[in-house]
Amino acid sequence: MSAPLKVALLGCGVVGSSVARALVDNGDDLAARVGARLELIGIAVRRPDRPRPDVPVDPGLFTSDADTLVRSADVVIEVIGGIDPARELILTAMKHGASVVTANKALLAEDGPTLYAAAAEHGVDLYYEAAVAGAIPIVRPMRESLVGDDVHRVLGIVNGTTNFVLDKMDTTGAGFAETVEQAQALGYAEADPTADVEGFDAAAKAAILASLAFHTRVASDQVHREGITEVSAADVRAAREMDSVVKLLAICELLRDESGTPSGVSVRVHPAMIPRSHPLASVRDAYNAVFVEAAAAGELMFYGPGAGGDPTSSAVLGDVVAVARHRLAGGHGPVESAYADLPVVSMGDAATRYHISLAVADRPGVLAQVAGAFADNGVSIETVRQRVLEDGASRAELVVVTHRAPDAALRATVDALTGLETVDEVVSWMRVEGA
Amino acid sequence: MSAPLKVALLGCGVVGSSVARALVDNGDDLAARVGARLELIGIAVRRPDRPRPDVPVDPGLFTSDADTLVRSADVVIEVIGGIDPARELILTAMKHGASVVTANKALLAEDGPTLYAAAAEHGVDLYYEAAVAGAIPIVRPMRESLVGDDVHRVLGIVNGTTNFVLDKMDTTGAGFAETVEQAQALGYAEADPTADVEGFDAAAKAAILASLAFHTRVASDQVHREGITEVSAADVRAAREMDSVVKLLAICELLRDESGTPSGVSVRVHPAMIPRSHPLASVRDAYNAVFVEAAAAGELMFYGPGAGGDPTSSAVLGDVVAVARHRLAGGHGPVESAYADLPVVSMGDAATRYHISLAVADRPGVLAQVAGAFADNGVSIETVRQRVLEDGASRAELVVVTHRAPDAALRATVDALTGLETVDEVVSWMRVEGA
Ligand SMILES: NC(=O)c1ccc[n+]([C@@H]2O[C@H](COP(=O)([O-])OP(=O)(O)OC[C@H]3O[C@@H](n4cnc5c(N)ncnc54)[C@H](OP(=O)(O)O)[C@@H]3O)[C@@H](O)[C@H]2O)c1
Ligand SMILES: NC(=O)c1ccc[n+]([C@@H]2O[C@H](COP(=O)([O-])OP(=O)(O)OC[C@H]3O[C@@H](n4cnc5c(N)ncnc54)[C@H](OP(=O)(O)O)[C@@H]3O)[C@@H](O)[C@H]2O)c1
Repeated sequence: MSAPLKVALLGCGVVGSSVARALVDNGDDLAARVGARLELIGIAVRRPDRPRPDVPVDPGLFTSDADTLVRSADVVIEVIGGIDPARELILTAMKHGASVVTANKALLAEDGPTLYAAAAEHGVDLYYEAAVAGAIPIVRPMRESLVGDDVHRVLGIVNGTTNFVLDKMDTTGAGFAETVEQAQALGYAEADPTADVEGFDAAAKAAILASLAFHTRVASDQVHREGITEVSAADVRAAREMDSVVKLLAICELLRDESGTPSGVSVRVHPAMIPRSHPLASVRDAYNAVFVEAAAAGELMFYGPGAGGDPTSSAVLGDVVAVARHRLAGGHGPVESAYADLPVVSMGDAATRYHISLAVADRPGVLAQVAGAFADNGVSIETVRQRVLEDGASRAELVVVTHRAPDAALRATVDALTGLETVDEVVSWMRVEGA
Repeated sequence: MSAPLKVALLGCGVVGSSVARALVDNGDDLAARVGARLELIGIAVRRPDRPRPDVPVDPGLFTSDADTLVRSADVVIEVIGGIDPARELILTAMKHGASVVTANKALLAEDGPTLYAAAAEHGVDLYYEAAVAGAIPIVRPMRESLVGDDVHRVLGIVNGTTNFVLDKMDTTGAGFAETVEQAQALGYAEADPTADVEGFDAAAKAAILASLAFHTRVASDQVHREGITEVSAADVRAAREMDSVVKLLAICELLRDESGTPSGVSVRVHPAMIPRSHPLASVRDAYNAVFVEAAAAGELMFYGPGAGGDPTSSAVLGDVVAVARHRLAGGHGPVESAYADLPVVSMGDAATRYHISLAVADRPGVLAQVAGAFADNGVSIETVRQRVLEDGASRAELVVVTHRAPDAALRATVDALTGLETVDEVVSWMRVEGA
């Protein structure tokens, strides 16, 4: 057994308190797995004097002076969250030779390259398995297991709150607002659910996944983002009629030019219909899952709890053991790989499919006019289904599913349809994925 | 970019030819990801003069002299399979300083410790992601991502052939023999399907998974193994009536004594009924999946293609990039972790649940007698369902599902039931998992 490694913990909230407990309770096992004891030298918090009965450590370990703490650690665990002071603390830690484990998706997606550069400069590790999809090993599989393969596409359910809400809307038929209230009552949504329901959280994770998948830097402000606040009970019902479900997906896609050479990446977060037969469709409640398509591996899926103190701490501790082993054995883990340096394309250039439901007049020539609007925009139709509405007022519902086309062409088609004299209303439109 | 690394490929069959193609076709990307070119210095095969039009390399690279080849490589990829000469070649390679990537589950499960010891002695890497569940990243997640957590149980569908056969039996209602013939015709089962249908292949993978999950050495001959040859259409029907499916599972389970201290591991391969609502139940065709339960992470599942040249080569190349990076950056990956050194318990001591279907006389006192047989063996019953058979001959079917009990007690109960005067026949019995 080597000399103990000094571990500094920054933050002792939901995740940090779980990490602290594990470091204490599983100390012997962790020591056996690392080859050295992990000695907790301090815990930085905002309020060091607050009693924390669920954290079984010497109260003297708590401090509000995170900056001093990180300077004497071998391994720093950052679970404060947010941009500042987390960024400065991580940079200071690295400068003083510590390897860093973080769960901070917001920071990584906003300014990852600064952190990666500092890690490379100081020859230390920067690990962040917990930043995407909580307990699910996905960063390491993308960064290491699939590094010899070519990833085409990643479809992720990476936000538990929105999956819970959409799943409940599907099973109960209820609307968005009432389901969010229910989720809040059950502790699945925060009092201010903006970061989740508007897709900000998922967008940060999409940026991280795309960077890993395509060896290209992607920041969260480059991710096209649409949340689920506009998803209605009617949309969910429309999906159900297509034997599909609505999910909020983080989508990372490689685009190729005519010769097959990678030409760009599309990174986006939006609700989409996926067929019930797709592995992602059976992801219920607040669970997360990431579906990966790679050239040689084919279709893979990683499934599990995407948040919560203990699940997130499992991912943090896996990283802590990894970076601790590197400190003993020499060497370090993989550094940032951004060599492909592909452009991030705009949403208008992403290739998507639409499901469009229209209320139309039930008379000859309507379908021809509607089909013309698609053709004018270069969009080809996969299926069209017409149903006479039961109110008897010679009106019909037309449900169209398109082939893949540039998103801009599909948006333009929806606009054109809205203006048609035979179209009463575009009842709903939603993108379709996973077919 | 550093100087090229010398790669030797041993074997050029299903997996090897895919690996060779990837090394050539993706040479530039691999070089960018590693930081050095991977130079293929030779391919050892049995028949070096055989034309191999699907392998786009200089024919001069083929050799039958594997022993000489491995002595001058930085990285050796072993995809010959079997025990000899694979073992000697790997040991020679390590002795001469090469890191080794292998897909050889049979060898790892028979004599892993010898290989791990040699890797540690010579300070080189031994990576084997491809040995379990093909393309699915599972070895690295177990060995690294979950190393800070405590794994309780692993349930794996790790053999594609048997999953294909059982899935088809479920969807068509056909029997075992005819379904195997169909699988052979479609290329999902080999001409001699013994290694798959008798569970040998799954047992080797179970041994590897258990070793990783429990930090304990487990060899394939310590794995209790029952194949699927005895699974009948009636068993599949019985499962269906329980809203369950029959799967061949590789099960690795941690046992604890009364104080909660780990006391042993149960490692076994056998058919079992699992509820259709369990994530493993939706694993169709020849796909594989591994379901992991850990203390902090909760329930995780890893899903994907379990075999085939390209999927397996994806896993091999991920390992090649990892070990190549270690050679450039210094250091090496995790070594064998066997510190927990828990005993492998016999099948009789494993805790299982049984589904038992009995043909009985339909008269008073029968249930009391049957229930007595369970009680005598200390087995408690969870549910019992009685159904009068339609032949009108005053006979009934009794379906019993038990609580968890030692497997020996359950086997003894089945024996006792067979001897009961009121029991005409034990129609079927099968273990139940995943509830
Ligand atoms: N919660 C999850 O399920 C989850 C899942 C995946 C990833 N994450 C990520 O993990 C990180 C932590 O999340 P969390 O849910 O554990 O947050 P949290 O419960 O809000 O805890 C934050 C902790 O940081 C401390 N802190 C705040 N400002 C500080 C400062 N300036 N200096 C020192 N300490 C400070 C707080 O101290 P006091 O205790 O004194 O207030 C608190 O202990 C975030 O990056 C989050 O995105 C969370
Ligand atoms: N196939 C899969 O889907 C799969 C999936 C996961 C893991 N694996 C594992 O991968 C390994 C290879 O499987 P495979 O299906 O690729 O086998 P395979 O198609 O039978 O190929 C074996 C290769 O090894 C060569 N070889 C045999 N004996 C040799 C010797 N004594 N010296 C040098 N070369 C020798 C053969 O040469 P010739 O070409 O001249 O006959 C052939 O190229 C096995 O360990 C297997 O368990 C396979």
